[in-house]
This record gives sequence, C-alpha cells and structure tokens, in this order.
Amino acid sequence: MARLIAFDVMSGDLGIEAAIAAIKIALAENPQMQIIAVGDEKRLQAQLAGHDRVQIRHAEAVVSMAENPKQAVRRRNTSLYKTIELVADGHANVAVSAGNTGALMITAKVLLKMRPPYRRPAIAGQIPCVGCTDSFTMLDLGANVDRSPEMLVDFARMGSEFARVVKGSDSPRIALLNVGTENIKGGQDLLAAHQLLGETDLNYTGFIEANSLFDPATAAADLPQVVVCDGFVGNVFLKTIEGLSKMIKSMFGNAYQSTAYSRLAGLVSLPVLNGLRKTMDSRRYNGASFLGLRGLVVKAHGNSDSVGLACALAFAMRQIDDQQSLIG
Amino acid sequence: MARLIAFDVMSGDLGIEAAIAAIKIALAENPQMQIIAVGDEKRLQAQLAGHDRVQIRHAEAVVSMAENPKQAVRRRNTSLYKTIELVADGHANVAVSAGNTGALMITAKVLLKMRPPYRRPAIAGQIPCVGCTDSFTMLDLGANVDRSPEMLVDFARMGSEFARVVKGSDSPRIALLNVGTENIKGGQDLLAAHQLLGETDLNYTGFIEANSLFDPATAAADLPQVVVCDGFVGNVFLKTIEGLSKMIKSMFGNAYQSTAYSRLAGLVSLPVLNGLRKTMDSRRYNGASFLGLRGLVVKAHGNSDSVGLACALAFAMRQIDDQQSLIG
Repeated sequence: MARLIAFDVMSGDLGIEAAIAAIKIALAENPQMQIIAVGDEKRLQAQLAGHDRVQIRHAEAVVSMAENPKQAVRRRNTSLYKTIELVADGHANVAVSAGNTGALMITAKVLLKMRPPYRRPAIAGQIPCVGCTDSFTMLDLGANVDRSPEMLVDFARMGSEFARVVKGSDSPRIALLNVGTENIKGGQDLLAAHQLLGETDLNYTGFIEANSLFDPATAAADLPQVVVCDGFVGNVFLKTIEGLSKMIKSMFGNAYQSTAYSRLAGLVSLPVLNGLRKTMDSRRYNGASFLGLRGLVVKAHGNSDSVGLACALAFAMRQIDDQQSLIG
Repeated sequence: MARLIAFDVMSGDLGIEAAIAAIKIALAENPQMQIIAVGDEKRLQAQLAGHDRVQIRHAEAVVSMAENPKQAVRRRNTSLYKTIELVADGHANVAVSAGNTGALMITAKVLLKMRPPYRRPAIAGQIPCVGCTDSFTMLDLGANVDRSPEMLVDFARMGSEFARVVKGSDSPRIALLNVGTENIKGGQDLLAAHQLLGETDLNYTGFIEANSLFDPATAAADLPQVVVCDGFVGNVFLKTIEGLSKMIKSMFGNAYQSTAYSRLAGLVSLPVLNGLRKTMDSRRYNGASFLGLRGLVVKAHGNSDSVGLACALAFAMRQIDDQQSLIG
C-alpha cells in the first residue's frame, strides 16, 4: 500500500527550503513514502522535479503564525487549507504541517469532521521519559485553551484508543495531571473529571504530578501510558521541556569552553555527551497527532529544521498504518 | 537587629532529623540568625539544648501532606499553626515550613490577614535562567488553583512590589505566561488580564511563552523580571523543571557508568559536571515567598533535605530585611 502524505511546505518558521530538504531526507529513508508537496509550484518544480515519489500541488497563499484561525479557515487558497483538503477528498492518507496550530485545528475540524462521540480535536504528543520503556502519550498539548470535565474525559478516551492502536497496549494506564495526588487538590473541573473518569471503563489510575513523570525512582509499572491535561497546561508543559533542554545544551557548551582543562574534559566526554544529546533531541520526537477527527493530521513543531520535519514525515507515515483501524 | 525565624520542624517529608540538621547548618552560616524551633519538644531538647540562638516551642500535632487545609486550620495544636501564630503575635519575623501548601496558605491568611488591596496570597519563587543575570520571580506557584483576570492582575502587582524591594529593580518588567505571544492566544481570562494589565501603571511587557524564558538567544533586556500565571499552571511549570532536572542528573550518572571509557570521561569531566550540578541544584533556590499577607511566610520544598532546608532558612532571613518596607 502506498503511503501518501500531503505536506504543507510553506507554513514552518524556517520556510520552504527546510521543507524541501526534509522531503529529500524522508524519501531516501522511507522507500514506501509518497509525498504531495503543497506550496509555491515554481520553487517546488525547480528542486523536486526529478523525484518520482513527489507530486506538486500549487498554493498561492500562506497562513501566518499570528493569523486568527477563524479568518484563516476561510482562505481556501492557502497551503495549509489545501493540504488538509487533500486528505478530506481522499487524495492523501495524512496531512503534515508545521503551521499555525489554531488554524490547523479549525480547518481540520471543518474539512475532516469529528469522529463521534468527540466534539473537539486534541493534540497528542510522545514525551520521552526514563522509567517508561520509551515515551508516554500526553494530550491535549494545545488544540484547546479552555477546559471542562467532559473535555478531559474525551481526551482520556482518545488517548486510550491512540495508545491501544499505536503502542499496542491492551488497556493503557491513564492518569490526570494535577498539582498533587490527593483528592483535595486541583480545581473544580479537575475534581469533576476525576470523578467521571472513575466511572468509565477506562484503565484510569488517578492523579499524577509533573515531576513524577520524570522521576527515575517511579517504577515503570506505576507510570501512566497516557497523561491527560487541558491544552493550556499541556502546551506550557511541552514548552518548558523544550526551553529547559535547550538551556542545558547551552550550559554544556559554556562549561566545556571555560578553561583549557574543561575543553579537554569536553573532548574526552564527546561520546557520552552525544548519547545524552540524542536522547534529549526534541527533533526525534517531532510530530504530534490531532486526535478525534475522521482523518489524520500531524503537526510538526513550528521551528522544525529539515531533520525535524523529516522525522515528522516518518512519524506521519507510521500513523497511516497504526491509526487506520480508528478512522476507518 | 535580631532576625527571628519561627521554623516548623515537623512538616517536611524528611522529618525532624533533616530539620534539626538544617538548623545547625543555618546557624553556623548566619551569625545573626535566631530560630524558634516548633515541634516535638523532647527531641528538640535532646539535640538543640546547647545552642544559644535556638528557642524551642512544643507542638504536639502535625499537619499531614494529604490533610484537607480547611480542616487543618482548625487544629491549633499543630506545628504548622503554632509557627505562623508566632509571626502573627509578633514573636518572630518570619515563618518557615516545608509542610502542606494549602494548609499553610489558609492558616497564614486567617492568622496574618491580607494586606489591602490583595484578596488572596500567592506563592512567588525564584527561577534560575541563563539570559537573565541570575533568576526571575514567578508567581503564583500553587497557592491558588483557580484563576480570574483580577487575580492575575493582583499577582502582577505583588510580583512587581516584590522584585522592587528584593531585587532592587526600579520598574520590574512583568510578563504574562501564555501559549503564544499573539493577542489571539490563551483563554478568555488571560485575554482579559492582558487588557487590564495594559491599563495599569505597571511595567507590563505582554505575553511570554515558557520556552522563551530559558532560551539563551533571548536578550537579557527582553526577559521579564516577573512572570505571572495562575497557581495550577505555575505549579505544573515548577514540577516539570524539578522532574526534568532530576532525570537529566540520573542520565548523566548512567551515561558515565556504561563503559570503561565513559567512566574515564566522567572522571575527567568531574569539575565541569560539578559546576553544572551546582547551577542546576534546586536546593540553592529553595524557599518560596507567600505574598500579599501582613506577615512573612516562606515555604520550603516538601522533600527538602537538610541542605535545602538550611537554604530556605537563609532565604527567609534575607526576606526579613528586604520585605520589611512592604509589610510595615
């Protein structure tokens, strides 16, 4: 089966050049991947004309990062709109974009429709951890900025489905992110969601605090496979991790530069540091899934470079196989 | 002037032994510090009887971490209650506890009263960063789990006052934590707070995202000195940093243990790693301030060890001088 990815090459912070480089990397690494590149036809033709697994679809306009999503969804000539339209019309299996998250969400909701019983899409990402074998699924990472107990229960259902088909867990452990594990913590919405989740058939294990997710002392069997929170909190969580990883990398650089001795230490440490760097490289975890829709949409990080975008394309291809059973 | 600290020795996760060790460290390092240790009289007598700068006040009960704050505040025989009472009655200049945050907040509010125009206390902490010279002030870190635009404006005022007297900034730059910097992001509460803050006389610089706070590329002049958010988001932010720092330390350990070569690299890197460790050591930043009250309360981290608690005691002593002008 061909895996056909509609790829919005215009909307990322680093522009069309990074996207074209990403296409070349991803096609070389994934023999079954086929891409419909959506954007500036002339530039795409000039650089991708030779590739037999690339089709080009022209889009004259671009959605900016600051554009109001409700206005963006009305402009049908943007690369973002046309990319999702290709999935809605059955011409592609999955849409990939590094663009405006709000515009992606509303456009996906309008063109692809929600899958009952879900009312609003959520963004799910894979967060690397130490205690769990690889990573856990976290949602919502920013599709919605408001919350209600019912939305949190929907996110738990979506996350459970996702972990079941994508990760192969029979009955994924689901936890609700809170500022304490006692039943008195959190606001009214969170306590109501806690109550509702206890009444579902989901494998709900209760509240968890953010620090426990990364604590090497937490046993793997106690770690949730799915962590649920509202989109505002999830997005702050994600950006805190990103910011801190970047800061620590920069501290490494500075520390090993400061004296001749430390420069030597840095040299000797290179293999160890490279191992750490690889584990902490957020590009490897690029690609978040919009859940709850009748079609597949993958959001790449806005400032992804070519390596990051190629990872998101590979992630999108795996989603085609994994999530087929969900979206039908 | 004597600096008299009322110290709840019973409520931390590591118990009275860590607290007693902390008292010895803190007194040795701070010649002007005087402590009223509040807790199990017998054990305190046995270990602190010789110290001329320690008074002992007996408390027979302890507030547990899981106890409902509204119930805890009614028990007047707890070490937590008696510690705050010493400040309310003018017997001590500041209260320090590593106990139940909710109980601390409600007890402080009842015994010390709010300082007009403030309605609810907020917890402010110092977050280390790269771009800023040292650290920025963030609040609320978990005193409140709900939010309103008016509360966020109150937090901004408290944070601005705090940074002015404690950090010596004339007109501290204040930012509101959001999931984007465009005016369309965030929920209704956040947008309303943004509007209100723009109308105050505060030096409000707009929205900021969590990753920008740690980005080495952000110029120091662009970094806020005070970051405002609701207590739920702030607490998740803080615990994410703590969890991630712990995970990275553990990764270091593992990486340098994995082969003979990497063990050698670890040995050569020791001075560099120790420098990094010190920068990342959350114990150095122990001690968060309850703001908006008519008296001083410092919250130490629940699982503080003796070094962490000693840092919180030293922090509390500095608060006496710094914040005197605020609480009058």
